[in-house]
Amino acid sequence: MTHIKVINPNTALAMTDAIGRCARAVASPSTTVTTVSPSMGPESIESHYDEALAVPGVLAEVAAGEREGVDAYVIACFGDPGLDAARELAMGPVLGIAEAAMHAATMLGRGFSVVTTLSRTVGRAWDLAHRYGFATACRGVHASDIPVLDLERPSARAAVIRLCAEAVERDGSDALVLGCAGMADFCAEVSRATSVPVIDGVSAATRFAESLVALGLRTSARGEYAPPRPKRYSGLLRDFTY
Amino acid sequence: MTHIKVINPNTALAMTDAIGRCARAVASPSTTVTTVSPSMGPESIESHYDEALAVPGVLAEVAAGEREGVDAYVIACFGDPGLDAARELAMGPVLGIAEAAMHAATMLGRGFSVVTTLSRTVGRAWDLAHRYGFATACRGVHASDIPVLDLERPSARAAVIRLCAEAVERDGSDALVLGCAGMADFCAEVSRATSVPVIDGVSAATRFAESLVALGLRTSARGEYAPPRPKRYSGLLRDFTY
Amino acid sequence: MTHIKVINPNTALAMTDAIGRCARAVASPSTTVTTVSPSMGPESIESHYDEALAVPGVLAEVAAGEREGVDAYVIACFGDPGLDAARELAMGPVLGIAEAAMHAATMLGRGFSVVTTLSRTVGRAWDLAHRYGFATACRGVHASDIPVLDLERPSARAAVIRLCAEAVERDGSDALVLGCAGMADFCAEVSRATSVPVIDGVSAATRFAESLVALGLRTSARGEYAPPRPKRYSGLLRDFTY
Amino acid sequence: MTHIKVINPNTALAMTDAIGRCARAVASPSTTVTTVSPSMGPESIESHYDEALAVPGVLAEVAAGEREGVDAYVIACFGDPGLDAARELAMGPVLGIAEAAMHAATMLGRGFSVVTTLSRTVGRAWDLAHRYGFATACRGVHASDIPVLDLERPSARAAVIRLCAEAVERDGSDALVLGCAGMADFCAEVSRATSVPVIDGVSAATRFAESLVALGLRTSARGEYAPPRPKRYSGLLRDFTY
Amino acid sequence: MTHIKVINPNTALAMTDAIGRCARAVASPSTTVTTVSPSMGPESIESHYDEALAVPGVLAEVAAGEREGVDAYVIACFGDPGLDAARELAMGPVLGIAEAAMHAATMLGRGFSVVTTLSRTVGRAWDLAHRYGFATACRGVHASDIPVLDLERPSARAAVIRLCAEAVERDGSDALVLGCAGMADFCAEVSRATSVPVIDGVSAATRFAESLVALGLRTSARGEYAPPRPKRYSGLLRDFTY
Amino acid sequence: MTHIKVINPNTALAMTDAIGRCARAVASPSTTVTTVSPSMGPESIESHYDEALAVPGVLAEVAAGEREGVDAYVIACFGDPGLDAARELAMGPVLGIAEAAMHAATMLGRGFSVVTTLSRTVGRAWDLAHRYGFATACRGVHASDIPVLDLERPSARAAVIRLCAEAVERDGSDALVLGCAGMADFCAEVSRATSVPVIDGVSAATRFAESLVALGLRTSARGEYAPPRPKRYSGLLRDFTY
Repeated sequence: MTHIKVINPNTALAMTDAIGRCARAVASPSTTVTTVSPSMGPESIESHYDEALAVPGVLAEVAAGEREGVDAYVIACFGDPGLDAARELAMGPVLGIAEAAMHAATMLGRGFSVVTTLSRTVGRAWDLAHRYGFATACRGVHASDIPVLDLERPSARAAVIRLCAEAVERDGSDALVLGCAGMADFCAEVSRATSVPVIDGVSAATRFAESLVALGLRTSARGEYAPPRPKRYSGLLRDFTY
Repeated sequence: MTHIKVINPNTALAMTDAIGRCARAVASPSTTVTTVSPSMGPESIESHYDEALAVPGVLAEVAAGEREGVDAYVIACFGDPGLDAARELAMGPVLGIAEAAMHAATMLGRGFSVVTTLSRTVGRAWDLAHRYGFATACRGVHASDIPVLDLERPSARAAVIRLCAEAVERDGSDALVLGCAGMADFCAEVSRATSVPVIDGVSAATRFAESLVALGLRTSARGEYAPPRPKRYSGLLRDFTY
Repeated sequence: MTHIKVINPNTALAMTDAIGRCARAVASPSTTVTTVSPSMGPESIESHYDEALAVPGVLAEVAAGEREGVDAYVIACFGDPGLDAARELAMGPVLGIAEAAMHAATMLGRGFSVVTTLSRTVGRAWDLAHRYGFATACRGVHASDIPVLDLERPSARAAVIRLCAEAVERDGSDALVLGCAGMADFCAEVSRATSVPVIDGVSAATRFAESLVALGLRTSARGEYAPPRPKRYSGLLRDFTY
Repeated sequence: MTHIKVINPNTALAMTDAIGRCARAVASPSTTVTTVSPSMGPESIESHYDEALAVPGVLAEVAAGEREGVDAYVIACFGDPGLDAARELAMGPVLGIAEAAMHAATMLGRGFSVVTTLSRTVGRAWDLAHRYGFATACRGVHASDIPVLDLERPSARAAVIRLCAEAVERDGSDALVLGCAGMADFCAEVSRATSVPVIDGVSAATRFAESLVALGLRTSARGEYAPPRPKRYSGLLRDFTY
Repeated sequence: MTHIKVINPNTALAMTDAIGRCARAVASPSTTVTTVSPSMGPESIESHYDEALAVPGVLAEVAAGEREGVDAYVIACFGDPGLDAARELAMGPVLGIAEAAMHAATMLGRGFSVVTTLSRTVGRAWDLAHRYGFATACRGVHASDIPVLDLERPSARAAVIRLCAEAVERDGSDALVLGCAGMADFCAEVSRATSVPVIDGVSAATRFAESLVALGLRTSARGEYAPPRPKRYSGLLRDFTY
Repeated sequence: MTHIKVINPNTALAMTDAIGRCARAVASPSTTVTTVSPSMGPESIESHYDEALAVPGVLAEVAAGEREGVDAYVIACFGDPGLDAARELAMGPVLGIAEAAMHAATMLGRGFSVVTTLSRTVGRAWDLAHRYGFATACRGVHASDIPVLDLERPSARAAVIRLCAEAVERDGSDALVLGCAGMADFCAEVSRATSVPVIDGVSAATRFAESLVALGLRTSARGEYAPPRPKRYSGLLRDFTY
């Protein structure tokens, strides 16, 4: 029995529930998926500032997961907040949803487009594409300028779907990546509206995390991802002493 | 029931059997793994020439697989021969083992080393690292100078394992990629000899291919991977013995 | 007396004849140019699949050329199919026409545009630009969406010439590369329609190959391009009609 | 009167004092330098985990600085933690010390070496070199494997100085960057031991920040660095509601 | 007392005066700024040819400056002509204005646009962006097609300001770099017309040069920037009027 | 009858003679090769300063060549001084010897090494490799630390040949590029000492220039290489003796 903990780094519980449904829908029967949201942090992540404040909560959930025997983690925000730090804490694999989605996209086509929320997050998406090695494969990042928490409105949904179809045409892409965990359940509709594979990172990360566990692979404990050295952490963040 | 066809592009049947065992060992219970070797092609792949002559056989197996209802394919040679062409033929996902192994390695560490067979294949490994976006993550490609078909000799095995340990140290890598399908069953031993995750591409590709199928994702049929236009192909391709 | 063998990798003999005329028109008086088409392979090359099936025929022609004392080879298809493998077989230089054209273009201007046939071949052209080091110098690859075998129709010719002029403007390029061996005899007309140097790879490759021979230079026999190790190649390669 | 706030992201007050001395030593007479350490966070920063937990404290200090009329900020840790988020909060310039040191190094020589503390921080230094555009100019990052808080021991100091001299030779560098705020006062000694310019990021960032203010330049308020949207932040991190 | 020599590489004295005013306006009270124009060279620099003929005059001014005890130099032409050679001659720092402006821009935003004069200089601006490491941060170089010596005409000024606003929108940039020393006094007006930081390289280079001197940093005298070996230089360089 | 003017940018006439012999040895019977040295400039080129002072002389020779009806030019110094400016002046092709040698090397092997003179010129060689697109293909640049004018001493010759053999081994290269026009006649000896193709840029550039002329190709007169705008150039350029 594999236990995967999917962490929604923001505190919007309705979004956490939707993420959980998407993750469970693709997991193997023998996999348990737990979905959580940290007790601290921003209600949505739409800036470097939001992301920075979400990370301690994500790390607290990973630390708790290690005590609970979790096998692998998914960080379910398209900025992949805290990914490196989480890998230092976790024995098993940790995947970000941008990371997983971009990996999957390059297995299915030569180039992909990303559709995201606010235009101020476009730079972060490109940073991640560069970091993961997909700066060439990523042919465009397109902002809908719809805030994360408005994504569930029908008009927003329609606008995102329209933008997805346009992005594929404009970029000449072979695949489309949904650039927000809040779009996880848009997959089927976007697929119908475009003629290309549409990748939701929550599903992809869940399934890839499960695969890495099945392959007997863990996060490297050598070098950069070795557990942090024990030390004193002061102030409000005392829960984090490792 | 998912059907994955693992194609060993060379004609060495003992190697095909070993590859099949590795693939089946990691596949889900609900997945059927078929392993084949083309009836034509070189007995091992150690040059661009060998690779070029192996590709038609790989493509024939993919074309047959499409008629048989195969869901996904694994090309089980570390040069990933014929990957683009196979994707034009296949509806479902097609993964190369170098591709899958490099993807997996970057999910577990910041940098990886590759250990391969003859030094003349080092350039091909680097080409693939560049193509997949991992030219920075790949910190070194190391040749054992042991021919593919000699890998099963105990002394060869020991030499490869030694080289793996050295490669990790020399490159300061966090993960190790086995650079030949003929090393697929070295994983456990190499893991014991190094302190890092060791990735065999046959296993990784099998499991990732299965994941993509589970996610409902197929090779893009738009643009570059659309089915080839029907046309006349002349003549018999015979007598390539060098 | 230098002997250059120009290999048209497809089986369209009219195209082979046109290619031969272009090559001979630029060769030195002391150079013999032989033009051939393999007896097997696709009638045109417009996909990775076509390219993969053309390569064995190209290699058979190179192997025959070595027995005949050929001094250098030109692979006259803009995808440069089989270039690495051909270099393993040949003692003398082997040049692809995309390679030669891109090299020439960067000697004459700071950036060049490529005009090609079907849009599905655009990715291959970019791959080659990356491989040869010209990803920055190449400012655009433009598809006319005219199949290779239709290029000789007057309307097609006019459309290609129009696209060439547009490409130079849109990309702000200093030079233009004709992206198909079937356009080899468009050079003069395209030159008149644009204000930039227009490079046909067949001519450029023929002349550069001749130059390398005159310089006493051969393909490196060290490392990656050393002759392939002798080994068993099984079976007949037949029935690839898609 | 320009007011620059230098933030030591860890809670080691002796280090904060030393950083303050270095910053004040190079500031113009008309510049006020305030040095602070957050009330929360790790006592030293030697992992992604430490860095992640230091960032909220850094941001609290920037937010406070905005209320106090600070003109520019220096983040005095070589990982430049929280730089993007701090820029979203601040009207004036914000500089990281790795950023400033690398910029300065490239103005004085063609290539530079970095000497840092633990080897697990080498990856972060390279990430920053890539981010700032100096991946080619940075010729090597060398770890002394001395923890941050041990740097003041005389033996550690001597070891760092020795490593600096070796790094310049090994890399053939023209300049040397001190890779930790805890090395800020090593500059003179390292300069004597090597024949190249030695750059301490604390000094460089202080002086460059002052320059940007003098030039009338502020952090861009357009696009990615615009102030974060107001929203609810839950839990322990309530002080951060923007 | 720091002495900075600002060299206008062309012979247009009105431009030299304007450059001097901009440099002095931002220098510290304790800094002396001398502005010169070589007695030989082109009246404006708008081609590689002009630049090549301006360099000897720039170097003569640096050589003279060394005899006069100058502490640092600014080369006030956006092509940064002779920068490497000047660094070989000078003990103190030498900054080009394109270099300084691009460095400053990346400290204030994630991406910048450049607005320049003739379109034939666009390639040079990109070359410099590549050389300094800012090829990704530079999102566009836009030519106004106004010759350098016409910049002071009111209509030209208005056209440049309009183009600056357009460039920021088109490129989605966070900062704007003025791509000619002749635009040094456009800063305030362009700032009003755009919502982003506007950087004039003359001011930025003056202030950064002053900072490097204050930090006790000099051009590296090791390796590539060591003083040239003494040797014989023949002949008079005369009559380059094209 | 094609007329190629080979310009040795330094004033060492013995070197000019040797360069001329090498160029004529490879030119076609129908090609006239003229070799010149400017009447002004440094006696050897071993720094950015030397190179800057050599350029006006090179340009004077190109300007004279245009009046004489020269068809193509070779700039016979491995730093390719003045290449862009010369292309603005010349109607026909202009090739640098580093450029031509690197192009040829990549046609014969996957990676090449360069052996040069003083270590201070290594950076310039890398700059050119980057500019021409060969930063990946160039696997190493090795300095012999023998000044240009000492190359003809037998001991120097032997040392260069030894270094060439070492460079190929150390870099795992397939080809070797001689990094100075003063090594043009070392080709045969170095070839005997290494097992790889050895490329002298003087010969390669001469032959490629001839090829471009035969192909009817000229330097682009559009955009960046258009003739410079006529303007006033002031003063005499004299007395640069360092």
